[in-house]
Amino acid sequence: MPFITLPFVPSIADVAAEVLNLAEAGPLILAAVLLSLVVIYIASKVGGEICARINFPPVLGELVGGVVVGISVLHLLVFSEGAVTEPSVLTTFIQQTAGMDGTVASVVASTASEVISVLSEIGVMILLFEIGLESDLQGLLKVGPQAAVVAIVGVVAPFTAGTLGLVTLFHVDLVPAIFAGAALTATSIGITAKVLAEIQRLTSREGQIIIGAAVLDDILGIIVLAVVASLAKTGTVEVSNVIYLILSSVVFLVGSVVLGRLLSPFFLGMVDRLTTRGSLLIPSLIFAFVLGYVAVILQLEAILGAFTAGLVLGETEKRRELEEQILPIADMLVPVFFVCVGARTDISVLNPLEPENRAGLIIASFLVVVAIIGKVVTGATVFGQPGINRWAIGIGMVPRGEVGLIFAAVGSASGVLSKSLEAGIIVMVILTTFLAPPLLRLVFKKPQAEENLLPEGAGVAVESPPEG
Amino acid sequence: MPFITLPFVPSIADVAAEVLNLAEAGPLILAAVLLSLVVIYIASKVGGEICARINFPPVLGELVGGVVVGISVLHLLVFSEGAVTEPSVLTTFIQQTAGMDGTVASVVASTASEVISVLSEIGVMILLFEIGLESDLQGLLKVGPQAAVVAIVGVVAPFTAGTLGLVTLFHVDLVPAIFAGAALTATSIGITAKVLAEIQRLTSREGQIIIGAAVLDDILGIIVLAVVASLAKTGTVEVSNVIYLILSSVVFLVGSVVLGRLLSPFFLGMVDRLTTRGSLLIPSLIFAFVLGYVAVILQLEAILGAFTAGLVLGETEKRRELEEQILPIADMLVPVFFVCVGARTDISVLNPLEPENRAGLIIASFLVVVAIIGKVVTGATVFGQPGINRWAIGIGMVPRGEVGLIFAAVGSASGVLSKSLEAGIIVMVILTTFLAPPLLRLVFKKPQAEENLLPEGAGVAVESPPEG
Repeated sequence: MPFITLPFVPSIADVAAEVLNLAEAGPLILAAVLLSLVVIYIASKVGGEICARINFPPVLGELVGGVVVGISVLHLLVFSEGAVTEPSVLTTFIQQTAGMDGTVASVVASTASEVISVLSEIGVMILLFEIGLESDLQGLLKVGPQAAVVAIVGVVAPFTAGTLGLVTLFHVDLVPAIFAGAALTATSIGITAKVLAEIQRLTSREGQIIIGAAVLDDILGIIVLAVVASLAKTGTVEVSNVIYLILSSVVFLVGSVVLGRLLSPFFLGMVDRLTTRGSLLIPSLIFAFVLGYVAVILQLEAILGAFTAGLVLGETEKRRELEEQILPIADMLVPVFFVCVGARTDISVLNPLEPENRAGLIIASFLVVVAIIGKVVTGATVFGQPGINRWAIGIGMVPRGEVGLIFAAVGSASGVLSKSLEAGIIVMVILTTFLAPPLLRLVFKKPQAEENLLPEGAGVAVESPPEG
Repeated sequence: MPFITLPFVPSIADVAAEVLNLAEAGPLILAAVLLSLVVIYIASKVGGEICARINFPPVLGELVGGVVVGISVLHLLVFSEGAVTEPSVLTTFIQQTAGMDGTVASVVASTASEVISVLSEIGVMILLFEIGLESDLQGLLKVGPQAAVVAIVGVVAPFTAGTLGLVTLFHVDLVPAIFAGAALTATSIGITAKVLAEIQRLTSREGQIIIGAAVLDDILGIIVLAVVASLAKTGTVEVSNVIYLILSSVVFLVGSVVLGRLLSPFFLGMVDRLTTRGSLLIPSLIFAFVLGYVAVILQLEAILGAFTAGLVLGETEKRRELEEQILPIADMLVPVFFVCVGARTDISVLNPLEPENRAGLIIASFLVVVAIIGKVVTGATVFGQPGINRWAIGIGMVPRGEVGLIFAAVGSASGVLSKSLEAGIIVMVILTTFLAPPLLRLVFKKPQAEENLLPEGAGVAVESPPEG
């Protein structure tokens, strides 16, 4: 039926009630979501295939595809981020093909972009669930101390170098300098993990250290962001909040793994008694989504919950079956995430012909150098792992990705950043995100010594194939 | 990061801007969606497993599970349908666990319910795509004339009997009587197809006739709804609109199948040249979503596009591979649809202890009888198919499901229906929806003669297994 199938939320209805009846908008929202997904899929496939052909990681192509269809170039996929923006090309297209007036079209388009955002969030959760499944909990625990050192150095080194450099070399005020320094601490676990999976090094020793460090870095990043956000807002740091975040992350990570392992026999017993379709998949998703919910409620990230759920379920005998079932779901939802990350990135700040960009580009070149060196040095800190590929670990921590974009967005919202510093942070995020995947592939290209695999060799068998 | 990851749409932002900053709401919307999905999955599994144990179709359990968590009982999953409703229990729960104030919670919950609605729409598209893949285009065309007669009789018989009965027996005015009669014409292709798949009769001769007739009934329903909606609004029928709908449905169905078959060699050639993950799945989803978009734009339904896409791709050599990949995706998304259909259904109108329900229940009992007989007689119209199970075909057309709910919602919005007539329609929708699956299973229980399968026997090999 072309009439109401989607309900209307009161808040949107307030705006929309005067211009459209409910019966009209429901299917149009669906249509807008479908069209956005088509744009996302085409961008991801065209970008991914081109990158695969020139021997670059496909995920880089998905990011670039996202940039092309996003805010920077084609304006097909535009997220309003709270500000009222120009209608996207997609909105105009839907408006014309469906014969809506402008107000209806903008309500439909903004609701659809909200839906796409949530789909991309679920996409990165599925990715981290898959990564968790493929990771080896024992192996992760074994490299835990090394991962912790890598994570901590990878936060401290770029933060201090960045903040001090900005204050001394560029005479930036302390609070904005601390903010920019904080933005340097992030690591995009999604991008790194995806590249590692693509080159089948997820379960190598290096891969496990990178994943472990990236997870810890994610938590450290949350704490750093909380600190600088409160600093930017009130000028002081709420110590109690910092302690709360540290405690809740530790309790969450340890608690969910311990509890999950205790409960997994019951879980398997229940799964074996189910007879309807999705008997393994649905309970697993329930587990992942509950942990994701708890993580968000604790002010952590949903992807941490999805990752630990995958890690725990990866310990069970259902691992392979679940991996097979999650594969097409990941194929469907993960590209939404990467294309959206690209689409949100405004690369216009990279244009040196625009005079107002130049101050930002000078700061950016400093930030990029600090961002890369500050993470690459972490590879040198790995101890007790003879023959390990230190370059790979350092470079694996480089991409800032969506996490860096969040820092930039929060900084922009707080109003403490100057325009050039904000542009500098965005350029740093773009370059680290786009340089890291090919570099990571390059440093892993060196012939892989046998010892670089986990002793048990568990990794080889469980690595995801590069193709779906 | 617990800070902004989802953008805010201007319309919601208008409402929300005063009470929350953007950084707060994004992850909470994700959290609300995750929690809603957990509720949906638990409802679908508990309901489905109970039904499977007592030998009822699992999909009935998903519907009942939806009723339990929905507007009728637990209020965990509530769709506002444009009206401002009481906050759902889920909203209150999220509000308390996340420590939000009420206004933020209601914005978050309403956005989340919008996302869940779109997910359920995509879920039913995936279901129809799967049904299309498993259907046999040749077999469908072969039973086309029979399906057309079944569809037309199944619209005309309940419409005339219902409208005349209401006018003569209950002295209802003509326009509301026509509206109620129109609501009797619907058939829920989703529920019927799901039950047929569950009992592995999708590709039997009866199954193919039912699917063909249900698809045509969907189109007839769109036309009938357009006619009665315009009648209720203006008192007249726009003939040009009716002609437009008829022409566009024919052009869409024939055009997409013909074009799809012409283009499928190019499609397969392209798929074979892709090297990255999702090389078959993503192009197939692009095809299904484009056709779904076109269907909505033509004022048809997105599920028609998904069905024809599945039908065309089911003709190719990639059929089995695609079926395997779509299976976990369907397991993940299809339950969202059925639970949402149940959650939207308000069964309080069934309570005879409530005095104001009684007039509705008397009309309802008349409507239910007409609804069942009016569809069951269609089985008698099947010609040239000796030994066919006529009861099965008739009963396969009975469930009104979500399509009936749409008629009730449009009728309610138009204001032409009296309270008792509206309640009567909802009761009719509930009973036909919940009675048909067990009845269908019952009439198919009779030992199946060999001739009841398609001559080629193609059906047996391609039927979906009852478990995932």
